[in-house]
Amino acid sequence: MSINIDAKEIEQILIEIFMKSGLCEEYAKTVAENLVLAEMRNTRSHGLVQTSNYAKWMKNGRININPEMKILKETPVTLAIDADFAPGSVAGKYAMDLTIAKAKENGIAMTTVKNGTHYGVSAYYAMRATNEDMIGLAFTNSVKLMAPYGGYERELGTNPICIAVPAENHKPVIYDGATSIAAYNKIFFAKTNGRKIPDNWALDNTGHVTTEPKDVVVDGGAVLPFGEYKGYGLAVMVNIMTGLLSGGSIIYDENMELKEDSNATAYSFMAIDISKFTELGEFKKTMDLFVDRLKTSNKREGIEEIYVPGEPEDIAYEKSLKNGICIDDGVVNSIKETMESLGLNSSLLMDR
Amino acid sequence: MSINIDAKEIEQILIEIFMKSGLCEEYAKTVAENLVLAEMRNTRSHGLVQTSNYAKWMKNGRININPEMKILKETPVTLAIDADFAPGSVAGKYAMDLTIAKAKENGIAMTTVKNGTHYGVSAYYAMRATNEDMIGLAFTNSVKLMAPYGGYERELGTNPICIAVPAENHKPVIYDGATSIAAYNKIFFAKTNGRKIPDNWALDNTGHVTTEPKDVVVDGGAVLPFGEYKGYGLAVMVNIMTGLLSGGSIIYDENMELKEDSNATAYSFMAIDISKFTELGEFKKTMDLFVDRLKTSNKREGIEEIYVPGEPEDIAYEKSLKNGICIDDGVVNSIKETMESLGLNSSLLMDR
Repeated sequence: MSINIDAKEIEQILIEIFMKSGLCEEYAKTVAENLVLAEMRNTRSHGLVQTSNYAKWMKNGRININPEMKILKETPVTLAIDADFAPGSVAGKYAMDLTIAKAKENGIAMTTVKNGTHYGVSAYYAMRATNEDMIGLAFTNSVKLMAPYGGYERELGTNPICIAVPAENHKPVIYDGATSIAAYNKIFFAKTNGRKIPDNWALDNTGHVTTEPKDVVVDGGAVLPFGEYKGYGLAVMVNIMTGLLSGGSIIYDENMELKEDSNATAYSFMAIDISKFTELGEFKKTMDLFVDRLKTSNKREGIEEIYVPGEPEDIAYEKSLKNGICIDDGVVNSIKETMESLGLNSSLLMDR
Repeated sequence: MSINIDAKEIEQILIEIFMKSGLCEEYAKTVAENLVLAEMRNTRSHGLVQTSNYAKWMKNGRININPEMKILKETPVTLAIDADFAPGSVAGKYAMDLTIAKAKENGIAMTTVKNGTHYGVSAYYAMRATNEDMIGLAFTNSVKLMAPYGGYERELGTNPICIAVPAENHKPVIYDGATSIAAYNKIFFAKTNGRKIPDNWALDNTGHVTTEPKDVVVDGGAVLPFGEYKGYGLAVMVNIMTGLLSGGSIIYDENMELKEDSNATAYSFMAIDISKFTELGEFKKTMDLFVDRLKTSNKREGIEEIYVPGEPEDIAYEKSLKNGICIDDGVVNSIKETMESLGLNSSLLMDR
């Protein structure tokens, strides 16, 4: 059965799970924070559903619970980090905070991270920049799922792009989107629930359009880029700015002939100090005007509201904060099983 | 009638037109170079068709033929420029070259430009970075044409994103795409040629999907973003990174209440020194592997080749270089009229 739980409460449960999985308290808190934020912002594919995966990866060593992150190259405005397979959010937070500090000092900074693991929701990092009145950018490659435009083999990750910008009275405007037309988990859930998928989402393993999620989830079909060749082009660029620029993998799960340690996720982050370009207060006020202007534009028939990027996620976040997080059956069970396998008392989760 | 002309020859004609329009030789050469490059790369909407517009704008003062470009703010890695309504490619080249120099010195750099004019094809700037073995990024806002997702009023430009990356043996990989689903000029040309447009390109001025180009070109309908809310989100971000971050306009043609000088195009540029993140030679070799990998991926039925971003444009460029540029009737006539209005002998263009 599904449950409704307070955000702080489920975060505490996740912290216990990840500490029991071997992380120190600080790291466990970071990983939990990222997953709960994703869930609250309705980016559920990167939310609580990942708890059991993360715990499994911590157990089987795919996530290194005692990483030694190393700075490989550094200048006042650039940084190249080897994350030593640290929990993704731990490496990402570390990298983004160093990027922000460098940008604060110098105006703009960029960091690449190689040998990472799944870093959760991108907005978690970019929002650290807006908290400091900066523009934040976050990119990551991901496991191969997407076909190049014209092809049908999995060659690219869903490679999301995230850009977050502070405003004055409005919340930060945050674009956080995969370069695929749909998240893989949406296809996965369609299979679980016996539903078909739209005919522009994916190809089967012979290159034909399919509405059967099984063709992707079981038989290795590929997800399609959003906006056809444009989404494909952006996915290629994200791959370059993460895997290639970090000196890591060409494509996640590949490139073993090139480097021993290349079989890993890679990220890159940027922070931009607005005040180095224009007056910060005025910029933020203009952001408010811009948001208002878009929101008050005439709506098409049947449209109730025009949203700015990130706004639907903010609304979901506020709702979760007020009403608690509703976790469905499957996810509840996976967390419960994870707790029990770690010898944790799952009654805290279940007795609700 | 259409003509076929050597690239260098038409560039020389354009230089003469722009010098006669009041530009110094250096500036005229830059503007001509950009338009001819666009034409050769088959980005015709930004190519020779713009010659008569540019000449007109130089005459009526919308383009300042004697600009005093000013650096408003500067750090070792950031730059904010007021272009004083200089020819777009003159301001863009100036800004990009300063950005490249700063990135070469420090690792990464970013420049905003306000009070600009139409800057032509974005690849012109980003390729200046790849010529120096760097990654180059170029963004510009543009005249309001696009509706926000869910709306139907023109609120955003077609706001292109350009990212260019050098490789070893392959040509640089260059993503250069508008955030709208189709270039405005494609709709304009459809009207000229009496053709319909696909039903996902544009809305009429009441917010309904239209296949009639007249609804957009004559009656103020809006172009749609590519990839629905994702293209919209990216267009919003380009607007912020150009117009807002430069301290210029919210939206081209608007925001008069905020600043006197805001009624202008704005750009931003970035350059990234690859060697500050990973070994340059290895990066370029890995780029070759990545390109090969995408190109040799299995193709869908009916697809002859998988291209990497920028490759179709490179093929067009090489073809133009070898066979000359074919200029159609309408564009020939507009250039001829411009030449005659400036007192230039148009027989050079026509006697072919």
